[in-house]
Amino acid sequence: MSVADSVRIVEVGPRDGLQNEAAHLSIENRVAFIEKLLDAGLATVEAGSFVSPRWVPQMQGTDEVLRRLAGVGAGLPVLVPNLTGLEAAIAAGAREVAVFVAASEAFSLRNLNCSVDDSLERYAPVIERALEAGLAVRGYISCVLGCPYEGRVPSAAVVWLAARLHRQGCYEVSLGDTIGVGTPMQARTLVREVAGELPVGALAVHFHDTYGQALANIYGALQEGVSVVDASAGGLGGCPYARGASGNVATEAVVYMLDGMGVRTGVALPKLIEAVRFVHARLGREPASAVYRAMTARADATPTSGG
Amino acid sequence: MSVADSVRIVEVGPRDGLQNEAAHLSIENRVAFIEKLLDAGLATVEAGSFVSPRWVPQMQGTDEVLRRLAGVGAGLPVLVPNLTGLEAAIAAGAREVAVFVAASEAFSLRNLNCSVDDSLERYAPVIERALEAGLAVRGYISCVLGCPYEGRVPSAAVVWLAARLHRQGCYEVSLGDTIGVGTPMQARTLVREVAGELPVGALAVHFHDTYGQALANIYGALQEGVSVVDASAGGLGGCPYARGASGNVATEAVVYMLDGMGVRTGVALPKLIEAVRFVHARLGREPASAVYRAMTARADATPTSGG
Repeated sequence: MSVADSVRIVEVGPRDGLQNEAAHLSIENRVAFIEKLLDAGLATVEAGSFVSPRWVPQMQGTDEVLRRLAGVGAGLPVLVPNLTGLEAAIAAGAREVAVFVAASEAFSLRNLNCSVDDSLERYAPVIERALEAGLAVRGYISCVLGCPYEGRVPSAAVVWLAARLHRQGCYEVSLGDTIGVGTPMQARTLVREVAGELPVGALAVHFHDTYGQALANIYGALQEGVSVVDASAGGLGGCPYARGASGNVATEAVVYMLDGMGVRTGVALPKLIEAVRFVHARLGREPASAVYRAMTARADATPTSGG
Repeated sequence: MSVADSVRIVEVGPRDGLQNEAAHLSIENRVAFIEKLLDAGLATVEAGSFVSPRWVPQMQGTDEVLRRLAGVGAGLPVLVPNLTGLEAAIAAGAREVAVFVAASEAFSLRNLNCSVDDSLERYAPVIERALEAGLAVRGYISCVLGCPYEGRVPSAAVVWLAARLHRQGCYEVSLGDTIGVGTPMQARTLVREVAGELPVGALAVHFHDTYGQALANIYGALQEGVSVVDASAGGLGGCPYARGASGNVATEAVVYMLDGMGVRTGVALPKLIEAVRFVHARLGREPASAVYRAMTARADATPTSGG
């Protein structure tokens, strides 16, 4: 199978990124960050979440973020954990929501406070109501290539969950290697198995750089026909095991790779770099992203000889 | 073409890595570092260089390093820039040497102080003398996917150089993306073209993480039949454009990926991590490597929900 001519990047920095940052950004700064990402050409930007601010204070005021971006139109999904969150999202003008389940029982119990089956039960009316209200629904599955508590996760569980979410009405299912343990062949095998049950066009991949494998895994997934890739500007957030290059794959690394492969993304790398600079200045830290550093490094340094 | 069952990693940290570090390690520490790498299972460890200490003071005393490791046997190549360096290497007991040329004229002139043709002329008697003395000779080609001065480098230049080095007696030619600008399809195309002129088994790849692309490129090269990969423990050194994840690909990231793909390397990851810890403690800085951080991070941190 050949790699797609174009790839849609789902920018998750303003949600999956910022919710894992120690510094909490104001609504103004989050709106400005999202506007810069849209201006860079990202067609889908996850704008926030309606999880209780008690649990995720970084996402407080997502309703107001959506209202200020009302003119933008589609392409701003928000995460909703339940019906209450969904109703709040609808009231704020959301046109797309995302729901999340885990492929690992232990992870689901510890992080979502319910079993995998219960999470599906809980989401059924949420998805139904969202579809009735004319919203698009995206599904996340976490721990698809490993769980911090259970270790290996059977691919059959992922295939079953993905098919179920798709049948329930999720137009797209994002396969998340939440702890970043997967490697390219595992990623390809999983994508191939899931694509046996639902159209590969309905799949996205969501890789973390915990072990530096994200880009290689994405390249593997592309070779299986995947054409939607989740990424986070500057590598913001992600799994907070360790700081540095350990979170979500950096959007600019994905764009750089795809540019080099001649795959269209619609994203202008210099503008994306500016969005990364902007948000990190507000967070008060340097971006850990290699592409950011390389593109902003002084060009007068010369490499040494011999390899 | 399927990926090889086993891959030989050429560990370049003690040379290509340390020669680009600000801190200069003692001979004792360099020997101890190499011993730890060998103990981790690395079969080939580049032990140093015989470039003048005026240019590369970090490699001063490579002769003494080799003498202290005399019992090790083969598998310790050293870089030699000319006949003087070669004779010193032979006198110190070297059994393998490496020579280096650039695929870009401007890079060759600025960094090797001669044209590409002149560098080949200069190396011809070096390779000849090394072979006469019973040494194995490895060839490096730098700037194979881009040059900091010229930009694009024609693949025909790389193919021609690789064939020439192989014909001159280099048992292996390492294709180096010195400034790390390449992406997977470019890497694959180049490998395919070079492998049209010499056996793919005589090729190694040498990628840098300047733009975070190294592992994806390696995965691409493996799919073209490459089975020798250069890497540097902890991502030491490499191109000093920017600090952090910008140098050589980290050996532990390569081993992690290959382990996950079921490809044998003979390297024990925990022992390699110990070698990375050791050398960085001597250098007085933290390793930038994601795998190092993930494997040494406290395991009690928990990832957050929703992707």
